Amino acid sequence: MKKIKIGIVNVTGYAGMELARLLGTHPGVEITYATSRSSAGRQLSDIFPHLSCLNLTITEKPGEADVAFLALPHRESAALAIQQLEKNIRVIDISADFRLKDPALYPEWYEFSHPAPHLLAKAVYGLPELYRDQIKSTSLVANPGCYSTAAILALAPALSAGIINDNIIIDAKSGLSGAGRTLSLKSHFCEANETASAYALDGHRHLPEIAQELNIAGKTKTLQITFVPHLIPVNRGILSSCYAELSGSISQSELELLYKDFYEDEPFVRIVNGPPHINQVKGSNYCMICARIDRHANRLIIISAIDNLIKGAAGQAIQNMNIMFGLEEDCGISMPALYP
Amino acid sequence: MKKIKIGIVNVTGYAGMELARLLGTHPGVEITYATSRSSAGRQLSDIFPHLSCLNLTITEKPGEADVAFLALPHRESAALAIQQLEKNIRVIDISADFRLKDPALYPEWYEFSHPAPHLLAKAVYGLPELYRDQIKSTSLVANPGCYSTAAILALAPALSAGIINDNIIIDAKSGLSGAGRTLSLKSHFCEANETASAYALDGHRHLPEIAQELNIAGKTKTLQITFVPHLIPVNRGILSSCYAELSGSISQSELELLYKDFYEDEPFVRIVNGPPHINQVKGSNYCMICARIDRHANRLIIISAIDNLIKGAAGQAIQNMNIMFGLEEDCGISMPALYP
Amino acid sequence: MKKIKIGIVNVTGYAGMELARLLGTHPGVEITYATSRSSAGRQLSDIFPHLSCLNLTITEKPGEADVAFLALPHRESAALAIQQLEKNIRVIDISADFRLKDPALYPEWYEFSHPAPHLLAKAVYGLPELYRDQIKSTSLVANPGCYSTAAILALAPALSAGIINDNIIIDAKSGLSGAGRTLSLKSHFCEANETASAYALDGHRHLPEIAQELNIAGKTKTLQITFVPHLIPVNRGILSSCYAELSGSISQSELELLYKDFYEDEPFVRIVNGPPHINQVKGSNYCMICARIDRHANRLIIISAIDNLIKGAAGQAIQNMNIMFGLEEDCGISMPALYP
Amino acid sequence: MKKIKIGIVNVTGYAGMELARLLGTHPGVEITYATSRSSAGRQLSDIFPHLSCLNLTITEKPGEADVAFLALPHRESAALAIQQLEKNIRVIDISADFRLKDPALYPEWYEFSHPAPHLLAKAVYGLPELYRDQIKSTSLVANPGCYSTAAILALAPALSAGIINDNIIIDAKSGLSGAGRTLSLKSHFCEANETASAYALDGHRHLPEIAQELNIAGKTKTLQITFVPHLIPVNRGILSSCYAELSGSISQSELELLYKDFYEDEPFVRIVNGPPHINQVKGSNYCMICARIDRHANRLIIISAIDNLIKGAAGQAIQNMNIMFGLEEDCGISMPALYP
Repeated sequence: MKKIKIGIVNVTGYAGMELARLLGTHPGVEITYATSRSSAGRQLSDIFPHLSCLNLTITEKPGEADVAFLALPHRESAALAIQQLEKNIRVIDISADFRLKDPALYPEWYEFSHPAPHLLAKAVYGLPELYRDQIKSTSLVANPGCYSTAAILALAPALSAGIINDNIIIDAKSGLSGAGRTLSLKSHFCEANETASAYALDGHRHLPEIAQELNIAGKTKTLQITFVPHLIPVNRGILSSCYAELSGSISQSELELLYKDFYEDEPFVRIVNGPPHINQVKGSNYCMICARIDRHANRLIIISAIDNLIKGAAGQAIQNMNIMFGLEEDCGISMPALYP
Repeated sequence: MKKIKIGIVNVTGYAGMELARLLGTHPGVEITYATSRSSAGRQLSDIFPHLSCLNLTITEKPGEADVAFLALPHRESAALAIQQLEKNIRVIDISADFRLKDPALYPEWYEFSHPAPHLLAKAVYGLPELYRDQIKSTSLVANPGCYSTAAILALAPALSAGIINDNIIIDAKSGLSGAGRTLSLKSHFCEANETASAYALDGHRHLPEIAQELNIAGKTKTLQITFVPHLIPVNRGILSSCYAELSGSISQSELELLYKDFYEDEPFVRIVNGPPHINQVKGSNYCMICARIDRHANRLIIISAIDNLIKGAAGQAIQNMNIMFGLEEDCGISMPALYP
Repeated sequence: MKKIKIGIVNVTGYAGMELARLLGTHPGVEITYATSRSSAGRQLSDIFPHLSCLNLTITEKPGEADVAFLALPHRESAALAIQQLEKNIRVIDISADFRLKDPALYPEWYEFSHPAPHLLAKAVYGLPELYRDQIKSTSLVANPGCYSTAAILALAPALSAGIINDNIIIDAKSGLSGAGRTLSLKSHFCEANETASAYALDGHRHLPEIAQELNIAGKTKTLQITFVPHLIPVNRGILSSCYAELSGSISQSELELLYKDFYEDEPFVRIVNGPPHINQVKGSNYCMICARIDRHANRLIIISAIDNLIKGAAGQAIQNMNIMFGLEEDCGISMPALYP
Repeated sequence: MKKIKIGIVNVTGYAGMELARLLGTHPGVEITYATSRSSAGRQLSDIFPHLSCLNLTITEKPGEADVAFLALPHRESAALAIQQLEKNIRVIDISADFRLKDPALYPEWYEFSHPAPHLLAKAVYGLPELYRDQIKSTSLVANPGCYSTAAILALAPALSAGIINDNIIIDAKSGLSGAGRTLSLKSHFCEANETASAYALDGHRHLPEIAQELNIAGKTKTLQITFVPHLIPVNRGILSSCYAELSGSISQSELELLYKDFYEDEPFVRIVNGPPHINQVKGSNYCMICARIDRHANRLIIISAIDNLIKGAAGQAIQNMNIMFGLEEDCGISMPALYP
């Protein structure tokens, strides 16, 4: 079979690096280029010695490809996506630039006016569990945020089934790779180790995306979502603890059945009996979910776990690519977690 | 001044060890004995080399003292407390055996019938911020649980002021020392490192204690509390993220004022503007609290941080002792956090 | 191609678990059984949720196979290996039971008399970089110890070239998975986290194995080797810092050339310019080695890094199997490191 | 008693921060100023919330004091020390600017010509265990480097007793706080966590200092020292594993006696039987040392452990101050380790 030509834009961040690692061993693709403005001309292995087997030279600009994976900061991504689409190159955008349907949310949450609002309607939110059919035929995938993936997969079945009301609380714990490779005091080892903290109490950028998708899942517009992200001292992984009020009566076994049915044929979602641990999904594209009735307060507790760099970024992007190009959906991303 | 004679029962767990460390350098006390059934006859420094400066030989049984600190498992603690009280030795009990006022809760949550229900009424819940006056004159302090301390200090001001309704969610993250020194797979380094997980989804034993005290604080009996503890890979510390529904309108500045007023003269509670980090309290007896209005969902978010072995156990026990014996409340426990 | 039937004995330790993970996705094999005395009858996924994709039921006893991987404690392994070989099943033994050529070393270092000394001569020390040809034709591979792999690969080129004398010091740092999954205080999270320590100062069991192989590499019998293992708070990985006295004069560039030549066609050894980091090999079968002249003291410094569960155990065992059965040597174990 | 007026120059690095924490609770001193160029005018608690109890405002320039603690980068420290000494203010310099006796070493190792070579002769190397008497009467203490403290304390007794020859290898493992608070990729959490690595293979700046002091201890000039520092994922602590060749015959018990005698009355050095762990000294000013004969290779193995920010920096500086001003040597720094 002819290999799909893929390009990686901004390969030197963690998402770009992880795309290179996974695509570099993916049997159906060929990496035609990998860019980085600051590192153009260098070998990828100079920056990431563990990827020396890929033998890639970093370029400044994108080249020829069937599909471009954009791992750029927001705003820059939109500009490049427009160019690539004009060249009939499909785009899988890891940034937030095409995730929100309402253009007005960009100035509010990302401090820029969207340059191509018409593309927001055309872009497909790249969560295969919810939008597989649309992903098959689109040329522009907006790859979901890491927190968003964990939260939406956790809550969509309950909202879709109408068993919870509008009050939702999402308490998420993320490893430090979610904060990126750019230097900052909060990512300094000594400041991040042996501690934990909440952040973005005034609103994290993944909130509007979570709200958009959960409202769609619940066929409503009135969800009241509190989302508080936390940093915990691990490299990879998100554990998302979601709390909701039950709108009616449901048994624990009915709840489990509901979740198992919802994700019945999903290759990467596993409904588990006990609370999932981050290390059970670390290094894999899996999302593990545990749904429980809190018998003391009659609430719903849903815990989900993903690897933020894989199911929360690069792995999901490749899952989307596999769907877009008609490959097996788990091709190149079927490895189990690296535990412990 | 004459030194207070203190005894430590079960010095070989983490709470007992921490009592020895802090009391061993406390200027107002003298350790008269430290017990451990399994290690009687050994030097404390054989087990804890960092405490060799204390030069203590472990005994099998308690001896003479003005006050006994009990760091035993539940049930065993009650039995010994009764004996000590009969000898007119004051008791500060680190276990849960005297925390719950309703005897019926013991069979339900701890699988034993309480041997001395009349003492439950007499015992004072040892949270100085709420019960300082009663602590001064009691001979039996029930030292609060670690999760309970963090949660109650976070929510008591809001409940006391009547600004929130009955729906409360507490998402707590604890370091592994909270799980004790006893061997178990969940505390194995490889199983606990680079991961995080929720546990006790069916109800953690600190829930009835939290419910009891928060209902008292809110002058109600109808709180619906969901409490989900999590393990995160740090040695010490609890970060407690609490979510509640506002019952009326309150501004961010009014909220902060309310919290600052509530804890105005407290030596160990600090209201902070930004979300507290565990490492800002690690090794200290402080509790840091940040209260915020979630402007997107009109909820209250309260984050608190403590060192589970100090403000959550040994430090608070000593704070109680200082109050009981008329010492300066921060005597021997005023050290700042060991950061980073 | 017909798949090789493989069996895993004692799948519930970390080495057995890692064999299951890697062999479960290896394209050339089929797992016919996986045993564990204590967990017979259970699903592998009950114990290791990340391996639920393998759908394996644990058995008590070995079954049919072309090759058996033994991940048993020493002594037990020898007994079973003898049985398997009698059934004409090839054996790759992860334990130390066939690593030492001199039977007298077993009572001294492992407290048992070897039950089949004649097999010690027949067994091949499974370090492909040194014994590839013998591995091809043997039915019994003694898979090297984790510390041994890191140390021997680091020092063999220098000894083989005769550039160092008899005085060798190996200071190795290992992650906690090297201490196994069995519970012990030294592996308790709180006791192992935020610390580091040396151990086995009176002699670690990997010393005779290292000495045997380094003496062979150096064509001598007189090496004076000091080997001190340390525990550091990581899950996986060994960093081995080796120090030796130069017997003559050699330049840095000659040294690098010597090392690059020695491992020229090796698929899993990479000579690097800068000191290797554990996270550059974690999750992979690679060994990274950096060789330097200490210009201040005219010594040789060699630093090597491996993943102790992969190149130090399961991955190397599979590399040996690939060689024994004529598969591509990197088949199923070519993944890059999971960094960070 | 009148309190000693002390000043801290550059309070916003980890060494300065730790000076503030320890001096802020030291009963014999009063902090008269704390400087930082970049943070002048801010509250210390803005930068280090755990130090809010100190209530310090950061100034740009030093003020009045009996003694100034300089926690500046090298070169800057020398310039300021000269000024302070001219004002008859005693100086305890945490930098390397007065540690080396030979001025020629500064251009070689620190890339600057020393501005006051005459002060090098006058400065006392602030290791109380070796230079207590000189410290008592000096006005300029050169506080030792962290690696140097651990290595010199480990090896001085053996060299002093003449039991080892010239060949010494020091393999040191340090926590990340040793790399400072300045941002760099090597201190980024994800790059430093779950890994370990050697660095400075071409020579670390603490080598000339270690060589100077060990040659003095051994009354020789010919030591051949290899010193290789490593980073391990802990916040605090250095574990130094030292290897030397025995020049004659000595028993294990004679060795222990030699070490116990050498440090007999030392308040902060403890000779221990088993290998010391970093967490046994973390948060304390203690150095733990274990000396062993390697019976397999007839070498000496010495393992030492310190907290790099305390005995390796701020704590030792205060120990020096206590000696200079006639206070109890352990005043304000006698706390046991914060374990675990």
